Amino acid sequence: MSGGHVIALSGGIGGAKLALGLDRVLAPGQLTVIANTGDDFRHLGLHISPDIDTLLYTLAGLDDPAKGWGRRDESWTFMRALAELGGETWFQLGDGDLATHVERTRRLGEGESLSQVTDALRRRLGIGSAIVPMSDDPVATRVNTDEGWLDFQHYFVRRRCEPRVSGLDFVGAGEARLAPEAAAAFRAPGLRAVVLCPSNPYLSVDPILAVPGLRAALERCAAPVIAVSPIIAGQAVKGPTAKMMTELGLEPGAATVARHYGGLIDAFVIDAADAGLAIAGLTVAATPTLMRSLDDRMRLARFVLALADRLAGARA
Amino acid sequence: MSGGHVIALSGGIGGAKLALGLDRVLAPGQLTVIANTGDDFRHLGLHISPDIDTLLYTLAGLDDPAKGWGRRDESWTFMRALAELGGETWFQLGDGDLATHVERTRRLGEGESLSQVTDALRRRLGIGSAIVPMSDDPVATRVNTDEGWLDFQHYFVRRRCEPRVSGLDFVGAGEARLAPEAAAAFRAPGLRAVVLCPSNPYLSVDPILAVPGLRAALERCAAPVIAVSPIIAGQAVKGPTAKMMTELGLEPGAATVARHYGGLIDAFVIDAADAGLAIAGLTVAATPTLMRSLDDRMRLARFVLALADRLAGARA
Repeated sequence: MSGGHVIALSGGIGGAKLALGLDRVLAPGQLTVIANTGDDFRHLGLHISPDIDTLLYTLAGLDDPAKGWGRRDESWTFMRALAELGGETWFQLGDGDLATHVERTRRLGEGESLSQVTDALRRRLGIGSAIVPMSDDPVATRVNTDEGWLDFQHYFVRRRCEPRVSGLDFVGAGEARLAPEAAAAFRAPGLRAVVLCPSNPYLSVDPILAVPGLRAALERCAAPVIAVSPIIAGQAVKGPTAKMMTELGLEPGAATVARHYGGLIDAFVIDAADAGLAIAGLTVAATPTLMRSLDDRMRLARFVLALADRLAGARA
Repeated sequence: MSGGHVIALSGGIGGAKLALGLDRVLAPGQLTVIANTGDDFRHLGLHISPDIDTLLYTLAGLDDPAKGWGRRDESWTFMRALAELGGETWFQLGDGDLATHVERTRRLGEGESLSQVTDALRRRLGIGSAIVPMSDDPVATRVNTDEGWLDFQHYFVRRRCEPRVSGLDFVGAGEARLAPEAAAAFRAPGLRAVVLCPSNPYLSVDPILAVPGLRAALERCAAPVIAVSPIIAGQAVKGPTAKMMTELGLEPGAATVARHYGGLIDAFVIDAADAGLAIAGLTVAATPTLMRSLDDRMRLARFVLALADRLAGARA
């Protein structure tokens, strides 16, 4: 069992569950979570980074397990007062959550990079793992639908993923530089594994992979690269992954996700419900992947790390 | 009894009490409150206008009567979360109050003037009287103290008015243009009265008077100009007025306030406790001025308006 560094690529809710598992089974400082920032947007003058925030709240134990997003013990006085003033209320901002956006926006306005702000916040919240945006440059996910091109939050929150999706674009990704700490994590000696968390491949992982420096680092990477399927028996645990796959003309299933990641990954972890799936040129391993409890998260993290160590051992 | 328009110059808490009285005894649309904006500042990236907000909350019935500032039924989740993140917490921002600052900052960022934003907010809150900043241009009150020059909020909130005051400056006031709606109110036919509310003369009314266009409008004004003393029997009802007067080498008393307003006012309303005070060249009228209830506020408003009508009748 290696003690090396682990990199996880993650979007929001689903990815953050495995990121938490990895955070708990690894020693502080051994994990770098690279977060999707394609969902970032400016709203009410505030810089909002939904996936970074989900990772911050989840790894700090501040997430709301009942609602599945946002902070626990949240209050909603701001939204009520904003509605009275005729402000825009389609994006729900809890009073505590707002502190993150206000503090981030203030720090960015003073010239800090998104990486610096995120690192300051995660340290302040007592998180031992590094949380790093994929890039400090702006990348904006846009969704092509039967209602035309929509900004991500417009599609995801305002239109509740209802429009039919025909394509995606990650505006700015081609010019975006990999965030310095993300690049450093790939260069760290003794890199143990890179884990593609069970996030939506199209909306959450693809924007990360669209940053040229990240894709190059992944291709150069000597450590095992392992993806965990967000699809169990043809269904998404949460969110529009399966619906989007159908709309994109793809078979909603774990095999489609594996093919999507193509030559980038060495192994693919699927749910026990999909056991038996074989994909040419890829190590496929089955285990229960539904993460209801913290134990589930830690167990899946250990499974992925053990698989990485086996793959590395076989190469050596 | 005239039905004409009334202008009130007001700072925060004390002034807003009489502004509310005037709002309630006048017909909707008959009152324009010109607010001090020398206390305005940018904090956490938000444009905060404390005196405008106090007027908005007071005239909308949203003010917290127990605390004496801010909104009623307020929650404080944002401040707790901000403290966790290591943000600046010396200026208390309630969750509901925050909606005002966020919405104002957003609208200013989109190119609206402070006048336009304030008018939109007061209409949205169902306030019939106009609330107008003294100027759409930035004016910043600074306080010279034994700790050096301090920004207003630094002196007032962070240092709780503890430093000894030796002087004041209203940075930008000399170049500030009177807000268009304030100028229009002075030009309105049949102006009935101009009321200097019982706010701190040095911190709250002087910044308004420092805007050249406003002073000129006041000097040209044919309607009676009446000030209400914020000092009762040598004491301020609230805040540092009496303390500041002593530090500035002035006798803390109603007579000092009357002399401070000098040739600008026609009449001066003092508390019944100060009855008997006479000031050369000035009509002085005594009445209970301590405003505990809404009835007190409306009674004082009626007293001031009746005095204005008597003065106007005597001139005619």
